Amino acid sequence: MDTETETLINGQRLKPNQVLPSNSADGAIIYDSSHFQLRSRDRHVSYGSINGAVPLPENNRDPEMPGRQSVTFRRLPPEMLTTLSSQFESLDYEPWESRVFKEESSKKTPSSLTKQGITRWVVVFFIGVCTALIACTIDICVVEITKLKYGFLKKYIDKCVTENCLYMPYLLWLGISCGFAFIASVLVTYGEPVAAGSGIPLVKCYLNGINVHRLHRLKTLFVKAAGVTCSVLGGLAVGKEGPMVHSGAAVAAGLSQGKSTSLGFDFGILKEFRCDQEKRDFVTGGAAAGVAAAFGAPIGGVLFSLEEGSSFWNQNMTWRIFFCSMVSAFTLNVVLSAYHGQIGQLAYDGLLNFGKFPDIPFTLLELPIFIGMGIIGGLIGALFNQMNYHISVFRRRFIVSRWAKVLEVIVVCCVTVTAGFVMIYCVNDCKPLGPKDDIDFPIQMFCEDGQFNAVAAMWFQTPEASVRALFHDQPGTHNPLSVGLFFITYVFLACWTYGLSISSGIFIPALLSGAAWGRLVGLGLYRLTEGAAWADPGKYALIGAASQLGGIARVTLSLAVILIETTGNLSLGLGLMLTLLTAKLVGDCFNAGIYDMNVQLAGLPMLPWSSPPLCYGTQARDIMSKPVVVLREVERVSTVLSVLEETRHQGFPLIFENRFSGSQGNQNSFGMLRGLILRSQLKILLKEKAFCSSPTGSASQPPVSLETFRMYYPRYPTFQGMHFTEEERSSYLDLRPYLNPTPYTVPMHASLPRTFQLFRALGLRHLIVTDDNNEVVGMITRKTLARYRARICCGTIDFVELPLGGHGVQL
Amino acid sequence: MDTETETLINGQRLKPNQVLPSNSADGAIIYDSSHFQLRSRDRHVSYGSINGAVPLPENNRDPEMPGRQSVTFRRLPPEMLTTLSSQFESLDYEPWESRVFKEESSKKTPSSLTKQGITRWVVVFFIGVCTALIACTIDICVVEITKLKYGFLKKYIDKCVTENCLYMPYLLWLGISCGFAFIASVLVTYGEPVAAGSGIPLVKCYLNGINVHRLHRLKTLFVKAAGVTCSVLGGLAVGKEGPMVHSGAAVAAGLSQGKSTSLGFDFGILKEFRCDQEKRDFVTGGAAAGVAAAFGAPIGGVLFSLEEGSSFWNQNMTWRIFFCSMVSAFTLNVVLSAYHGQIGQLAYDGLLNFGKFPDIPFTLLELPIFIGMGIIGGLIGALFNQMNYHISVFRRRFIVSRWAKVLEVIVVCCVTVTAGFVMIYCVNDCKPLGPKDDIDFPIQMFCEDGQFNAVAAMWFQTPEASVRALFHDQPGTHNPLSVGLFFITYVFLACWTYGLSISSGIFIPALLSGAAWGRLVGLGLYRLTEGAAWADPGKYALIGAASQLGGIARVTLSLAVILIETTGNLSLGLGLMLTLLTAKLVGDCFNAGIYDMNVQLAGLPMLPWSSPPLCYGTQARDIMSKPVVVLREVERVSTVLSVLEETRHQGFPLIFENRFSGSQGNQNSFGMLRGLILRSQLKILLKEKAFCSSPTGSASQPPVSLETFRMYYPRYPTFQGMHFTEEERSSYLDLRPYLNPTPYTVPMHASLPRTFQLFRALGLRHLIVTDDNNEVVGMITRKTLARYRARICCGTIDFVELPLGGHGVQL
Repeated sequence: MDTETETLINGQRLKPNQVLPSNSADGAIIYDSSHFQLRSRDRHVSYGSINGAVPLPENNRDPEMPGRQSVTFRRLPPEMLTTLSSQFESLDYEPWESRVFKEESSKKTPSSLTKQGITRWVVVFFIGVCTALIACTIDICVVEITKLKYGFLKKYIDKCVTENCLYMPYLLWLGISCGFAFIASVLVTYGEPVAAGSGIPLVKCYLNGINVHRLHRLKTLFVKAAGVTCSVLGGLAVGKEGPMVHSGAAVAAGLSQGKSTSLGFDFGILKEFRCDQEKRDFVTGGAAAGVAAAFGAPIGGVLFSLEEGSSFWNQNMTWRIFFCSMVSAFTLNVVLSAYHGQIGQLAYDGLLNFGKFPDIPFTLLELPIFIGMGIIGGLIGALFNQMNYHISVFRRRFIVSRWAKVLEVIVVCCVTVTAGFVMIYCVNDCKPLGPKDDIDFPIQMFCEDGQFNAVAAMWFQTPEASVRALFHDQPGTHNPLSVGLFFITYVFLACWTYGLSISSGIFIPALLSGAAWGRLVGLGLYRLTEGAAWADPGKYALIGAASQLGGIARVTLSLAVILIETTGNLSLGLGLMLTLLTAKLVGDCFNAGIYDMNVQLAGLPMLPWSSPPLCYGTQARDIMSKPVVVLREVERVSTVLSVLEETRHQGFPLIFENRFSGSQGNQNSFGMLRGLILRSQLKILLKEKAFCSSPTGSASQPPVSLETFRMYYPRYPTFQGMHFTEEERSSYLDLRPYLNPTPYTVPMHASLPRTFQLFRALGLRHLIVTDDNNEVVGMITRKTLARYRARICCGTIDFVELPLGGHGVQL
Repeated sequence: MDTETETLINGQRLKPNQVLPSNSADGAIIYDSSHFQLRSRDRHVSYGSINGAVPLPENNRDPEMPGRQSVTFRRLPPEMLTTLSSQFESLDYEPWESRVFKEESSKKTPSSLTKQGITRWVVVFFIGVCTALIACTIDICVVEITKLKYGFLKKYIDKCVTENCLYMPYLLWLGISCGFAFIASVLVTYGEPVAAGSGIPLVKCYLNGINVHRLHRLKTLFVKAAGVTCSVLGGLAVGKEGPMVHSGAAVAAGLSQGKSTSLGFDFGILKEFRCDQEKRDFVTGGAAAGVAAAFGAPIGGVLFSLEEGSSFWNQNMTWRIFFCSMVSAFTLNVVLSAYHGQIGQLAYDGLLNFGKFPDIPFTLLELPIFIGMGIIGGLIGALFNQMNYHISVFRRRFIVSRWAKVLEVIVVCCVTVTAGFVMIYCVNDCKPLGPKDDIDFPIQMFCEDGQFNAVAAMWFQTPEASVRALFHDQPGTHNPLSVGLFFITYVFLACWTYGLSISSGIFIPALLSGAAWGRLVGLGLYRLTEGAAWADPGKYALIGAASQLGGIARVTLSLAVILIETTGNLSLGLGLMLTLLTAKLVGDCFNAGIYDMNVQLAGLPMLPWSSPPLCYGTQARDIMSKPVVVLREVERVSTVLSVLEETRHQGFPLIFENRFSGSQGNQNSFGMLRGLILRSQLKILLKEKAFCSSPTGSASQPPVSLETFRMYYPRYPTFQGMHFTEEERSSYLDLRPYLNPTPYTVPMHASLPRTFQLFRALGLRHLIVTDDNNEVVGMITRKTLARYRARICCGTIDFVELPLGGHGVQL
């Protein structure tokens, strides 16, 4: 249900998720699909009928009325990729300028401001350090246990290849991998389903302004970290970098609040940061720190956070994000250097160390090749995303129960191990074992002595090491046939794996499969040119990896910087950028990037960058939700209680006491606007029993302080355990000290683009629609705006209105 | 005069620049310093008296009224660094949603949208190419003529050092340099004063929303390009990189409009981009392309544009900026490679090629050294800026006439040459001439045969080459004493030079002086550690250069990326970032960055990132300008004419016809808001004589199309040549098809932070203040908001209100 705007229909109770028949007048259809009945009592709750656009009252006038050409939004049927989930609420980015807030801030001294500023930097420092430490722990665990695992298996294979008992190491491999996969899956499925997937789409949504429940819990962080370690150890086609970003965000959200709900612990510090706005800023930094730690790319991290998350570029915030990234990269470097025995050195840039490329020159003639590879990457990426979408839809329909999800993970794990084993068994790609090869576990299999099986080397290491091998190995190392086979197998496995009920990133699988086909292109060029210096297969593997990742994720600017920072290669920068841009443009012709597709599948009401084009004829009154549930500035407790019980709105406009005494005569008005109050604030006031006996309110000091409001953040009291006597019910709540006296409003005849722009640029949660006399006529929220989309394809625009539904999140 | 908000005082004509006595009630003082009298006629121009905050009318109420604690803004006296110039107007970033606009956009088809999208990319492509070509031309000119100049001088010196006629080459050097400096100065001083300085502060201001007159003219572009070439050839302590950014911006503004006012030429294409909003987006791209071309840093360019310019991060715009940067870097690379004889290669990354550093590892122990160098850089930078400020103030007072400005340039040029010559003559820093030295003109002076004078080498090349030498020369090459002497001389010269009436950048002088003291630190460490591998003087020269530039310009994130891209060195990235951040933090304790100081000196009303802190008690009605000059929707031509003649407001709220018939009774109201119209639009309507005879307006097709409005952009008709008959004067203008029906408004009791946030985030030009009945009570513009500042220093906040003055721009 759209809990922020759901509307009421007089005398008719509609079940949640029941979709109303489309009620279109001049292209304007809007009302939410779930409605509640309100018992009629002595209160100023307004009822209305659904009748399309609100007509203009007598003394209002619409300058566009003659010949207004409104766009027709086609209402889509509820379907997997088009339904917006109504279970998500928005964050409050707007400072809540109530009287209690202003009184507190007027008491602030310059030195308290300075102290707050310094505290912010200190918190950010610790966010960077902790994010890096978590990243290090995961990395070291993965590296050490991987060594044990493959060392153990190698011993058996070497023994069994002569003793003809190869089923033994196969079964062992299967057992060990499935064990880890089982743990990874159980942790996520039974522990914390929100920790599934890469976490990047959810962090994006959070930064966009959606309050994703349980995203930043300590438990989620633990499940994410332990889960991704087990997923990688299970040998699945996953990366650990996406989850790092989520971990960074969770660390930031936790540290900045000075308390943990999971542990039920409150340090009693950092209380001034307990609001959505401050928390968001810290989370932006945490996400950047996560990228910095995962890829050793502090600049890339900042760009990623800004590109994905922030809509308002504030320089001060940018400094802090930058500092956070830097600290994270530093810490990781120091710890990993110490781990590798180089204490005091700064030699390990990031988890994802692809090894430095030497300076690779490239010529103008190679640009068409790069563009061509960008096109291939875009095509493969689009295909990948489409396949993954169909798998996700299938999964959503048929793999519903928890045990089925765990079972699917086990099946995928078995298939992965079997595919690897069959390839090692069947493809006899023997290479001489050079002294310089840094292969940890060279498997001899059926090769001559002094040789090793190159295919086995690809499977018997972490995916990161395989990418490194494809980037840096000498031209002769890999047989094109085995690389091609590996590519096809791996791409298929990665596509199947992404979306399972485990913590898993898509970066590494994308890079690895891209590096595989990129190397094939490079090998082809190398043979064609008979070994020309520029036709370095490693370089083309890098281009292929970038192209593939660009085609799948469609993140360009930050991705280019991340790849440049990760490979330490600037000279190829222009080539990388060109490839990424091509891959994105080609991929966008077919479908959305995988993260956006995830967001759509989960029905998250993410606001796009701009409103649909050509919609200047559509006005706020065409799309707004109404009737609006309003309250008076001093309201009877019983009224507030029943409004809270019977609606799920998150914000209530407050109106002037004597609304019916006015002579304005606008039938559609709900009263003259006086302010806005949130559901959470009403709940706290009820919990604190801040009542007064007189309907004119009390003139004394407001009974509830800002401190109390902060104490409850972000988990507000529920009605369970709240009991009110009959006397209390008939007393009043004076809302005047707590209301936001100047909520943002929009005139009812403002165009959709203008409304959208106002909402998006200021990061609003509620936008009240008013008529010319400043009277409330409707309400616009995130879900109202997120529903109207334009799909531009092949020269036509399809204006669609997404339905609202109740399905859950599974990324 | 504040042409957008100036207020009227009944019966009293005040001269422009006359400052009204402060009229403070409860800390609220605001009214602009220049006022005009309006003859009273038959029109709805409202008069009022200045009486502090507007009292609230009967049925309005202020929820904060009890105990509102407003901050007291101390009114500063008009002084060089505190006066805001009133001659600048704002840009219109808001789409003008009038009926004619909406009708046009509803006629658009999806394919015309696609076409427009593609056109945008094509235009951006050409912006990148042209910017790069201009950069190449300047660079090649500088390199070639420098070779001729110093080759010629070297011949004379080599001859005269034996023949004892050293005054000869000195005089020749003086003559050639002064000749170039003279041309550079005359071009700027007499040709286009807005082309003076680096141009970066002006581009920043433009992107912030200030309409800097003549900034993007073709003539300005020419003067800038030719001027900076001559400045560099004159041997002055200037760089050519800042002007490149300005050139890029000018190219973008010119190309995107498809016409040139300087040439009086109109291609008749790209008409849909003729509005401030589209132009701004292209200029953002152009500035990025300029950085990309100047430094070979496409990512740095994008970051620079975003960090400095854009307040709203739009992903689509970011793609285009990125593309523009990339194209520019590519083009430059191709052309320079061809110029250096490597056709088809991509070997020359940017104009500012500092040469690739080999991989320089650094240890944890060096971090304190980097921080220390950051502190030194911050201190030197702050001192530099302070000195430059005093020089600028002196210059503003005493060097006013054009010839004096030219003379000052000549004097500085003479001092520069003399300083160089004296150093070469006196310091006998002889070094053996190795085969690997890439010094173009080794001057032997009094050295032995086979040796050359190292000091002469520093002066006898472009500053870029000197920086390269300090970065890459072997540890023994430079004598600490001569480097120290060079540093002191050069820093002094750079400080004097920046702000002269020539085109000049500050990047290179800052980098060069920083590299000098950085190398000194490096040499010290090298000797202390007896030549340890990590104590590479070149590395410390780079850190010093970054630190110095960070201390002067205080641009961090983009600067770090630019330096990383320019030096091709990622491994030092973290060290560079740390140094830059330290330098910025230290410098900010003392004064603003040099660009911000420039902006303040020019009195440009740049809006900071956020409103002053702790100002929640200050409300919109405390700071707004009033009385407001309003018009009716259908207004008499004579009224419009006299309003335009007698005020310099740029926007007029339109009110409902029967304002006096209402029973609202707000004394301070100017009528119920119906829309907003701009001065420029009124002028065009008058010019086109779009009159009607009836006071109820005409129902027919609006007589002036959007096409006509675009035709006039951005130079609107003046009243010269406009003649109106008495009949025309008594007819009416129907403004309804052209007005913006939903201008942004703010309630009169909204707080200053909320008002600021709305204005800044949406890039507004006019913000109308309304009371609770949606009636106009005041107006807020850029200058209103830019005047209120808070200076936080040593734990205290100084709330100041800047005066408005009429002085001009000289950067």
